[in-house]
Amino acid sequence: MCGIVGYIGDKEAAPILIDGLKSLEYRGYDSAGVSIYDHKIKCVKTKGRLINLEERLNNNMLHGNLGIGHTRWATHGEPSDINSHPHMNSTNTISLVHNGIIENYMTIKEKLESKGQKFVSETDTEVAVQLIDYYYSKNHNLLDAVLKAMDKIEGSYAFGVICNDEPDKIIAVRKDSPLIIGIGKGENYIASDIPAILEHTRDVYLLEDKEIAIVTKDNVKIIDIDKNEVTKEIYNVTWDLKAARKEGFDHFMLKEIFEQPRVVKDTLTPRLPLDVNDIVLDDINMSKEVLEKINKIYIVACGTASYTGLVGKYLIERVARIPVVAEVASEFRYREPILDENTLMIVVSQSGETADTLAALRLAKKAGAYVIGIVNAVGSTISRDADDVLYTLAGPEIAVASTKAYSAQLCAMYLLSIKIAMELGKISKDEFLELREELYELPDKVGTVLEQADTIKELADKYINSKNVFYIGRGLDYAVSMEGALKLKEIAYLHAEPYAAGELKHGPIALIEDNSLLVGLTGHEELFEKTVSNIKEVKARGAKVLAIALEGNDEIGKIADDVIYVPRTHWMFTSLLENIPQQIFAYYISVGLGNDVDKPRNLAKSVTVE
Amino acid sequence: MCGIVGYIGDKEAAPILIDGLKSLEYRGYDSAGVSIYDHKIKCVKTKGRLINLEERLNNNMLHGNLGIGHTRWATHGEPSDINSHPHMNSTNTISLVHNGIIENYMTIKEKLESKGQKFVSETDTEVAVQLIDYYYSKNHNLLDAVLKAMDKIEGSYAFGVICNDEPDKIIAVRKDSPLIIGIGKGENYIASDIPAILEHTRDVYLLEDKEIAIVTKDNVKIIDIDKNEVTKEIYNVTWDLKAARKEGFDHFMLKEIFEQPRVVKDTLTPRLPLDVNDIVLDDINMSKEVLEKINKIYIVACGTASYTGLVGKYLIERVARIPVVAEVASEFRYREPILDENTLMIVVSQSGETADTLAALRLAKKAGAYVIGIVNAVGSTISRDADDVLYTLAGPEIAVASTKAYSAQLCAMYLLSIKIAMELGKISKDEFLELREELYELPDKVGTVLEQADTIKELADKYINSKNVFYIGRGLDYAVSMEGALKLKEIAYLHAEPYAAGELKHGPIALIEDNSLLVGLTGHEELFEKTVSNIKEVKARGAKVLAIALEGNDEIGKIADDVIYVPRTHWMFTSLLENIPQQIFAYYISVGLGNDVDKPRNLAKSVTVE
Repeated sequence: MCGIVGYIGDKEAAPILIDGLKSLEYRGYDSAGVSIYDHKIKCVKTKGRLINLEERLNNNMLHGNLGIGHTRWATHGEPSDINSHPHMNSTNTISLVHNGIIENYMTIKEKLESKGQKFVSETDTEVAVQLIDYYYSKNHNLLDAVLKAMDKIEGSYAFGVICNDEPDKIIAVRKDSPLIIGIGKGENYIASDIPAILEHTRDVYLLEDKEIAIVTKDNVKIIDIDKNEVTKEIYNVTWDLKAARKEGFDHFMLKEIFEQPRVVKDTLTPRLPLDVNDIVLDDINMSKEVLEKINKIYIVACGTASYTGLVGKYLIERVARIPVVAEVASEFRYREPILDENTLMIVVSQSGETADTLAALRLAKKAGAYVIGIVNAVGSTISRDADDVLYTLAGPEIAVASTKAYSAQLCAMYLLSIKIAMELGKISKDEFLELREELYELPDKVGTVLEQADTIKELADKYINSKNVFYIGRGLDYAVSMEGALKLKEIAYLHAEPYAAGELKHGPIALIEDNSLLVGLTGHEELFEKTVSNIKEVKARGAKVLAIALEGNDEIGKIADDVIYVPRTHWMFTSLLENIPQQIFAYYISVGLGNDVDKPRNLAKSVTVE
Repeated sequence: MCGIVGYIGDKEAAPILIDGLKSLEYRGYDSAGVSIYDHKIKCVKTKGRLINLEERLNNNMLHGNLGIGHTRWATHGEPSDINSHPHMNSTNTISLVHNGIIENYMTIKEKLESKGQKFVSETDTEVAVQLIDYYYSKNHNLLDAVLKAMDKIEGSYAFGVICNDEPDKIIAVRKDSPLIIGIGKGENYIASDIPAILEHTRDVYLLEDKEIAIVTKDNVKIIDIDKNEVTKEIYNVTWDLKAARKEGFDHFMLKEIFEQPRVVKDTLTPRLPLDVNDIVLDDINMSKEVLEKINKIYIVACGTASYTGLVGKYLIERVARIPVVAEVASEFRYREPILDENTLMIVVSQSGETADTLAALRLAKKAGAYVIGIVNAVGSTISRDADDVLYTLAGPEIAVASTKAYSAQLCAMYLLSIKIAMELGKISKDEFLELREELYELPDKVGTVLEQADTIKELADKYINSKNVFYIGRGLDYAVSMEGALKLKEIAYLHAEPYAAGELKHGPIALIEDNSLLVGLTGHEELFEKTVSNIKEVKARGAKVLAIALEGNDEIGKIADDVIYVPRTHWMFTSLLENIPQQIFAYYISVGLGNDVDKPRNLAKSVTVE
């Protein structure tokens, strides 16, 4: 994680860097800092949110037209002033910001220490600036020093580097961490992500791994590690930042929850034109011949996106009858998975930059597998590296806890599952038309669930003092329960654990006592009687039960303490509707507990380190 | 769950029933009761442990030579006197004990109520005795009444039924719940499991589904649902009850933890004769031809046994290169899994009676898959229904939380993984000889870990006030972390959650605050640096870290607050050694909290309901 930004031009750098960092705070908010060239490099940095840095700068504004800035998500070393970025060499002549993890930092540190260099922080990052300093002291060329350091450093990084003696440039490089270059007129930018520079320019270069950018006021030169110039196309950003405002809602999260009818519609309907009896996925080019040879599908992702994978596994196996393994990327990539040209991999990522997911994608491609990305951020690394992309049209998601992006991922997965099954002749045109009708009704049904927000707020108030929460379900409900529990962990800091309903009695039921809360998902009605047996087992031991059920299911009302009903739809699509109450429930518990809903502690939105 | 027992003969029934129930208490201990025929049926039952029933019987001993008894694990209706078994019809002329769940009990209850029958309990069981009563009132034949009731009842059951007007017999039937008949001289028994009758006889009939036993003092007649007589072989029990005593340990759990060097040796060495350069698995008859056609393996189990499956998945995929899916049985069986004659299923169950696992096995066999059972209880239903069996020679496990049985399952999985890889030519004879040497050293290495019990007790005392605990690891360590967290849930009632180390930052890290406890498993040293990065991320946020690591790994000592070291072995076998400290840690936390270690609240050992 971590966000980096840089500016060179004629304007005051500091306000531009601070503005840029504000839109990168989703990448971490443990500390923040800037380095500005004002005859020499001056650095101000501090622990905590960006607001602390702004206060410090108000008392001591730095003036200059060249600078770099950073917002941190701590990996090595606790959040503190000294561990904040930018980092400097010991003579304060070179300054550097970093996103990523330097894996061999201990080795490099020991070597440099043996040569007499002194370290002040616990971070991995400091070795990068000290190593560059070491090479710079030999031939006084910043570019060469950075290139030599890249040769020694193992791990992932995006760096922005400036130097007292070469105040006409920023050197920017990336490997396995995202970095873009914003192209202005008489001024240029570097940043971890597009929103940081979008007020200034819509023209960007998307840097690839091991590309180095030499960014001056009037020019951007991009070279490879052997100093060959690289010709890159300019990428023009077409979306705007309107979505990135709260528009009257108390929090971005609530606004994004309420955007879901639109998001669902935007993701579904353009792919379901009424004049064609098919699903039209413009960016999916996989041929029927390739698909027919697929004998195994992996769905790989992290966090919330990985639960889209569990829903996808259930749907694809059931309707297309191809074996599917859904797995978290950090596990998948290291277990020597069995991959070949008959393997289809589907990766899911909101940011399109998730480090482990990206690495899994590259592993699969290397082994000859076909990769489809379900991605929200247009132009992101995963969208570029995958063979095909299915974009989720959720718009920018600002709250750290994902809501609308997950709903859009589910919609994309519904489309992909049905499309695969149709291509393989497992779903007839008539069945498709039925499904399409149901899909067209989904946005309104999401709206119906949202109308119950006040009732769900009352339930959140009722259960706000729960200490242990279990979310249970079977089949698709189990997949949905995982997202419900994660939401409560992320923003309410409650230990909420999802469990397959049938597994409770194999251990976790020992935790159930009077006033434990169990959230029971019962939308998968084929298994209703089984799940109800499990709910009764915990009721018999004193737990309170909050059920999420399909409209008209009166049976559950006799058993649960409270029930939230969602509209009926085709069984394939219940997961979307059942999840909405979970989002609202977690939101109001978090608000009630006085937490920082949009920026929960310890988290970052885009996870670009392993 | 639930345990049932019955006696008919010349002796006092009550003490025999109570003794039998004692050895069945592992199946549940929410309530207990007996019905004895003393000129008419008299029933005494009470909420809570068996000791409460004994006290009540001391004040009011029932005399008679025919009786049935029950120890309950509550499913429908809270633990209470009224919900306890045996249940009676309203005229107190018929009494019944039940293990299982009657799924259509609401429908039957409503019908009987409409005919004027009155119900007193909330249980599903009461409808069975009322339904038998309804048919009995028509033709006054207990056997016919039971047969007619069986025709109407859906779900799982083992019943024992006695009747005032036919005091010469017990009618016993089973469907999807275990039941055995003990054959004595001038006396006979029924029971859920062998230990309940082992003091009296070693000759038993193992009842199959939908078989009905008419048990009189001098005879046992077994018929099918159409009243055809079934000829059954007598099964002779060869093991004894010595293992079922504490032998100086404070708890069965501690005794069983300390038995592990022997259990590991017993499970491994007979299969690794030194005069043959091969693994000899006597009860595995699968031919090489069948194995070579296998293109997909499912490992299916519940609870602790399912974590054996995760280890197996990792090992088999890596050494035999066959895709493996490890899944909990309650999910597997209902998601229409893709099964055919090229599928191998491995099921794992200590009791060999786990309801969901058994159902999954039957589903697979029906689809033509080959099934191997890894089972501890000789003669159990799973051991009989599987194509092949690999017995874990752990001996009877009494503590509800599994320790030695899990270690034995791991050993069986090691043997099976290596055997499969050898048969497929993926492990050479030389490699096998190396592995065999390591396996021969495992029992002593388990002993070395056990020597650290006092140190681990100190760590348990240090961390006893932890409220939230996360167990993390990557790869094999992740599989091991699941068992560690489950153990803490089961007996310490602490919310301990396992997490793939790389996934922590995708949400759960929000729960980390000062003094949160993180147990970090680092035995999978290929991924050591990655896991250490994740440990640092939580350390940076204030968590305490207890690491489990391989001897000689000094690096982790610089990072973690405490480290428990285990001996080095081949990477395939680290899971066994890393798990032992987790067992001891959970044990001492449970003891320190004053919990009932061997019989944790809400649990039962053998889960014979879904």
